[in-house]
Amino acid sequence: MARKQLPTSPLAPTAMPPLPPVAGVRLAAGSAGLRYSGRTDLLLALFDPGTTIGGVFTVSTTCGVPIDWGRARIKGGKARALVVNSGNANVMNGEIGKVTARKTAETAAAVAGCQVDEVFLASTGVIGEPFYPDKIVPGVQQLGGQLRPDAFEDAARAIMTTDTFPKWATRTVEIDGRPVTINGIAKGSGMIAPNMATMLAYVFTDAAVDAAALQQMTTFSAERSFNCVTVDGDTSTSDMCLVFATGAAGNRPIAASRERRARAFFIGLRDLMVELAQLVAKDGEGAQKFITITVTGAASRQAARRIALSIGNSPLVKTAIAGGDANWGRIAMAVGKSGEKASREGIDVRIGGVPIAEDGGIVPGYDETPVAAHLKGQEVLIEVDVGVGRGMATIWTCDLTHGYIDINGDYRS
Amino acid sequence: MARKQLPTSPLAPTAMPPLPPVAGVRLAAGSAGLRYSGRTDLLLALFDPGTTIGGVFTVSTTCGVPIDWGRARIKGGKARALVVNSGNANVMNGEIGKVTARKTAETAAAVAGCQVDEVFLASTGVIGEPFYPDKIVPGVQQLGGQLRPDAFEDAARAIMTTDTFPKWATRTVEIDGRPVTINGIAKGSGMIAPNMATMLAYVFTDAAVDAAALQQMTTFSAERSFNCVTVDGDTSTSDMCLVFATGAAGNRPIAASRERRARAFFIGLRDLMVELAQLVAKDGEGAQKFITITVTGAASRQAARRIALSIGNSPLVKTAIAGGDANWGRIAMAVGKSGEKASREGIDVRIGGVPIAEDGGIVPGYDETPVAAHLKGQEVLIEVDVGVGRGMATIWTCDLTHGYIDINGDYRS
Repeated sequence: MARKQLPTSPLAPTAMPPLPPVAGVRLAAGSAGLRYSGRTDLLLALFDPGTTIGGVFTVSTTCGVPIDWGRARIKGGKARALVVNSGNANVMNGEIGKVTARKTAETAAAVAGCQVDEVFLASTGVIGEPFYPDKIVPGVQQLGGQLRPDAFEDAARAIMTTDTFPKWATRTVEIDGRPVTINGIAKGSGMIAPNMATMLAYVFTDAAVDAAALQQMTTFSAERSFNCVTVDGDTSTSDMCLVFATGAAGNRPIAASRERRARAFFIGLRDLMVELAQLVAKDGEGAQKFITITVTGAASRQAARRIALSIGNSPLVKTAIAGGDANWGRIAMAVGKSGEKASREGIDVRIGGVPIAEDGGIVPGYDETPVAAHLKGQEVLIEVDVGVGRGMATIWTCDLTHGYIDINGDYRS
Repeated sequence: MARKQLPTSPLAPTAMPPLPPVAGVRLAAGSAGLRYSGRTDLLLALFDPGTTIGGVFTVSTTCGVPIDWGRARIKGGKARALVVNSGNANVMNGEIGKVTARKTAETAAAVAGCQVDEVFLASTGVIGEPFYPDKIVPGVQQLGGQLRPDAFEDAARAIMTTDTFPKWATRTVEIDGRPVTINGIAKGSGMIAPNMATMLAYVFTDAAVDAAALQQMTTFSAERSFNCVTVDGDTSTSDMCLVFATGAAGNRPIAASRERRARAFFIGLRDLMVELAQLVAKDGEGAQKFITITVTGAASRQAARRIALSIGNSPLVKTAIAGGDANWGRIAMAVGKSGEKASREGIDVRIGGVPIAEDGGIVPGYDETPVAAHLKGQEVLIEVDVGVGRGMATIWTCDLTHGYIDINGDYRS
């Protein structure tokens, strides 16, 4: 099956930073012919001995085999290999999916010279179709001979499905005066509403971080990044975010996320994951506008996040933004349906920084002109205060356009 | 503002039953020029003394003034008048909305010769715009001189917003051998995902039913009808369903919903409300296909309903159906994101009665041909068993098409 060519999102960055190597990481991307012709669909990454891992996984009850696989093994805290394929999500396909996962892991373990339990897997693509080992196993073997330290950008391309551009980010920070690198790649375009988890994202660093500390930082950063992005409110069966720390930078290992000396690393990790999450929203299926929604005055941070996601998931809000319509009533509707506490007589709404409603009603003499101008741009800012507390959160999403219908109405993505 | 002409839904019934008069009810519909030119936008209904009322209201925290008004008064159990306007929802517009509601009720009370607290109000249309009394008050006064017993179909038209066809249904049942009539009208097309409530629906009967019994039957029937329909997952600020029973049929009043002699009436009421709910889904914005989703094997009826709504609200499922794509993986995804208990290895999926997946995987030798043929039709049936219990529920929805984007992307509806 040839993959339909989708036009690149107009929100794609015009320039992407080059990704430096990360000491202790080697990668290879290639084409195993899993579903699409003419593109890469398989990624193998190997990590030096001593690499620690942190990760979060989807809470979907129909999650895929690779999710089960990773969740069962991440507590070990050690990783030596990662295999990611696109084309088939390895979800809801019976025993064959489990067989393929195990054979894939065994193959990668043989290539890496490690335990099977030190291999992590991810699959993305169609749900509910058999996934046989016949192509992926020789694919992994072949990639074992092609590993390079500088293949991050190829890796980002190999994990794409309906993505229209590859997504990566990089940071360099210092631990105890010693520079460490953090590279991240992600994929995601539709079926984006991670729930206490994330879409597929992989972060690689040469920092030395104990597994428990890495897990704490990963959970916190995913909560502030991937868990704050939505495209269509549909939660994937395959969401995961894994962070690999090889320790090759040689710093004294970080033992706890709260260590003062870990601060720059922790902030760098979080910011990198926020950047990746924003790239996912910018490649939302059919997206023409990138929308930032900040909710303040909620009962808690979680309440603010849920209200913001209720706004960001509302098809009526998203179509209004697509149409350039400053329909703040739909925003109020979405606050109301969230189920979270809000003061109807205390709600303020701003779009593009312009107050539209204050204390639950439209501001006297409101002039729509500057808001309409703001909505003509590619980046839209919605700010809502719900007037009950001090909880605040920001989420990122995109508008809902004909492109979404085109992509999902006639393409088994 | 002239209302854009939307093409009539292809799922509109080809014939609608005539609505007989309901003894004790008189109505008038007219145009008060509230927002749209060239169409009716105001309904006044008066009820004979002794009329009881039951009703349910949205749980939205940003609900409109008429919701507050009705909720505060329905416990009295008595109704003498109903005023419904379209064009402005009387939501999130500060003090002026409350003033207009009270003046409207006072005017209707003067026309009906009743207490203000026996008047019920509903408003539907744009959220967050001032609603002044200057047009609706003289409108109600004028309609007071035009009341007729046979204006139900005009009434159904007057409450429309983006609806492309008026929605009504009727039943005749017997209580103690005496015939009673039940007429219902409803509106709804977008912003449809009622939550323990419903969109705007009004049911009128000449049966004599004590208010407490009427409330029980209304709550039960709304739960089985309007609470089982979704178009876009957006919950309106104005949802309500009111049932008026004039008692003019002269039957001995029904004192409890469980009375054996009330059975035919109760079933008739529920079925009429199901029919109205289905009409709402058939007029879903942009709808080309009417979708029935039945979930069985869930932990409870509520769990089954929530799983079915998770499927029915999934944009990826709805766009797949629109595109004729039997993408059962997206159905499994929507089961997984519902948060309700499901056995991943026990999920069965059928479309159009054809088994696609059994026990969590695709059926051996599955042939997509008959499913593809079924998806070409206007009525689509999805059946899912989640394999954990005996809870079951059915919901109704429609597909997601370019029409939805057209309607909501460039029209402040």
